[in-house]
Amino acid sequence: MTYTAEIIAVGTELLLGSTVNTDAQDVSKLLSELGINVFFHTVVGDNPERMKQAVEIAKSRADIIITTGGLGPTFDDVTKQTLAEAFNKKLIFNEAVAGKIKGFFEKRLPSLKMTENNLRQAELPEGCEIFDNGVGTAPGCAFQAEGKHVIMLPGPPRECREMLKTCVDPYLRKLSAAQIHSHNIHIFGLGESAVEEELRPLMESLKNPTLAPYAKDGEVMLRLTAKASSKQEADELMAPILKKVQETLGDLIYGIDTESLEKTVISLLSEHGLTLSIAESCTGGLLSKRLTDIAGASRVYTGGVIAYSEQSKTELLGIKRDLIREFNEVSREVAVAMAEGVRKRLGTSIGIGITGIAGPDSDSSKREPGIVFIALSTKDTTTCSQLNLFYDRERIRIGATNNALDMIRRLLNNE
Amino acid sequence: MTYTAEIIAVGTELLLGSTVNTDAQDVSKLLSELGINVFFHTVVGDNPERMKQAVEIAKSRADIIITTGGLGPTFDDVTKQTLAEAFNKKLIFNEAVAGKIKGFFEKRLPSLKMTENNLRQAELPEGCEIFDNGVGTAPGCAFQAEGKHVIMLPGPPRECREMLKTCVDPYLRKLSAAQIHSHNIHIFGLGESAVEEELRPLMESLKNPTLAPYAKDGEVMLRLTAKASSKQEADELMAPILKKVQETLGDLIYGIDTESLEKTVISLLSEHGLTLSIAESCTGGLLSKRLTDIAGASRVYTGGVIAYSEQSKTELLGIKRDLIREFNEVSREVAVAMAEGVRKRLGTSIGIGITGIAGPDSDSSKREPGIVFIALSTKDTTTCSQLNLFYDRERIRIGATNNALDMIRRLLNNE
Repeated sequence: MTYTAEIIAVGTELLLGSTVNTDAQDVSKLLSELGINVFFHTVVGDNPERMKQAVEIAKSRADIIITTGGLGPTFDDVTKQTLAEAFNKKLIFNEAVAGKIKGFFEKRLPSLKMTENNLRQAELPEGCEIFDNGVGTAPGCAFQAEGKHVIMLPGPPRECREMLKTCVDPYLRKLSAAQIHSHNIHIFGLGESAVEEELRPLMESLKNPTLAPYAKDGEVMLRLTAKASSKQEADELMAPILKKVQETLGDLIYGIDTESLEKTVISLLSEHGLTLSIAESCTGGLLSKRLTDIAGASRVYTGGVIAYSEQSKTELLGIKRDLIREFNEVSREVAVAMAEGVRKRLGTSIGIGITGIAGPDSDSSKREPGIVFIALSTKDTTTCSQLNLFYDRERIRIGATNNALDMIRRLLNNE
Repeated sequence: MTYTAEIIAVGTELLLGSTVNTDAQDVSKLLSELGINVFFHTVVGDNPERMKQAVEIAKSRADIIITTGGLGPTFDDVTKQTLAEAFNKKLIFNEAVAGKIKGFFEKRLPSLKMTENNLRQAELPEGCEIFDNGVGTAPGCAFQAEGKHVIMLPGPPRECREMLKTCVDPYLRKLSAAQIHSHNIHIFGLGESAVEEELRPLMESLKNPTLAPYAKDGEVMLRLTAKASSKQEADELMAPILKKVQETLGDLIYGIDTESLEKTVISLLSEHGLTLSIAESCTGGLLSKRLTDIAGASRVYTGGVIAYSEQSKTELLGIKRDLIREFNEVSREVAVAMAEGVRKRLGTSIGIGITGIAGPDSDSSKREPGIVFIALSTKDTTTCSQLNLFYDRERIRIGATNNALDMIRRLLNNE
């Protein structure tokens, strides 16, 4: 049997646009991996009447109802009450859960006062399976009623994510027979339409596995997904398609089932036993931040300089003031001096220098926003690329760091 | 009349968890500002049958239906067809729109090939108002039928956001009479439950305006919202409540209607005519990235050092190797030396030094993940705080940068 699930996120803050619904994304990812179909997400406010309406609709079209949010300690948290009523269950105060909540406050949050309403989180539907909250106070739970599975998860994204991994994943694996397996094929350097144009005949000819493109932050990802009774069968279905995609796109593919360009770069540096340092101007630390998002980055990334002013370029990188004045802060020559300067100062195998205009306005350099120079220096040679990223500030900064990472990847792949 | 809107996001990638529904957030923010109630978000895949079902439900409970996504050039983009059928409208090829799409490719994306399917985006429902896409190829549109307003927006977040501002905002302002005005009260240093405990009697006593807390990334935001017939009337309703909240929370409030801690810090530095430099270890560029997310940061932020290794601390900041070996890389002494070192090297008014363990594992320093030292140096004095952030890597890094920003804010507020 293939189950169908519906995700209901509860919270007026979502409907007001104060927060974004990352919980639905996290739940969807897990369900997709487990081969459970998700046909709808619903978001509803902290309102018992409309919450009930959303639950009734979900009951009519899904086997599994998963809610996120509304389990908190405050008076507008209505999820448990509403679902208990919709399925004729009582809420019962659970002493063991109350004890854990008290313990959590004593151990993890001694600086925060536990309040009486925190204990409302210990009221749970009768006969439910309790999901421990490893990183917060609100426990989740699951119960079966009227032929449906009902699962309630906390709203704070970190708590939801942790509970998905430790409690919901094993709970749902017991239900699911058919498996879905996927490969994520990561592409940099070609737009979504162009990727699809290249692969259209293949994509349209496929039933199982399927192949679909997704665009995000200047990258394209192709998701290859097979339904099968085992991982081996799924792998056999996917292997010839994966090969065709690789033949078509070649080195535009930077990774398969990797997390990100930065993770790919960190892994390649590790494999080659090389180290990296960075001097960033217009990207202001974003490239360094992306690399150090990866745990263990310190083994290959030694650090660098945020050269956000002339003084930081001269003082920290030893670039001559005359060079900057002659060629302009935003120039090929300064990018090269930054890359070489940081590589030499920190004694790394590779140095990166980025200078450009992120906008929205031009600056003293008089260059147009979107002009970015990226230099890559090794002991043998220094190369420099010029980009023209005519987008907004955020996208220019992301695009510049993507391109810098891709330059490192291409260098290391060719070695 | 108060209108009720429902947002339908279309895209299988949302149901698979490949992307997060930021469009619904952006649309919701605008509607909330305009005093239009949003009671539900729905997400549905690229499937005409289920899309039709979602539209029928929305028709039964909303006056305004806003869709995002599914307007793209690829064969699985079904929004226009489905909505046109649901409201008995024909799709008509629009020459002017086709010309604009061709022009967009020639001007903005000369490196990408325009494909024939890009021109499918020029098919639009008869009699609709066309919304120009300033940053992409798919135009949006709006039409009225069966007493409802139907608005279709492109899925890529940047395109959706731009169209909301330039087309949807003026379109909806013509409909709406009652206005909603809000103040966002930003708090750092107190958890959500504790904030609510402080303000519970006030919150429960209010009908209009309302006051509600939201937690995100270690901060709490209180949203004060009034419905009124004019901005002045709303302001008069909110003023006494705002005053009470300020009296209760004092300097835990870092800003009202500000965007973020980093924006607050940049503004304060500007006002005081001061400059800032940063030396980051465990936060790896995140603090610098957050500050340079703000356009114009370069007027007060001169840059700094990512001191992710011993060599970067000695070479770029002039810290003595003996000091690091004596006290440990993660220590009060090294944080202080980093803050003083970067301030002196770059000649800024304020220097920040951050060293700690972001985890998940401990490192050569043998300190527990979550231990972070933050030093703040001025020409008169250097102070240092120790944090114990026992969370995951991402949260430790966000928490450390939040605290660093708050230290600067408190220094400048007290000057």
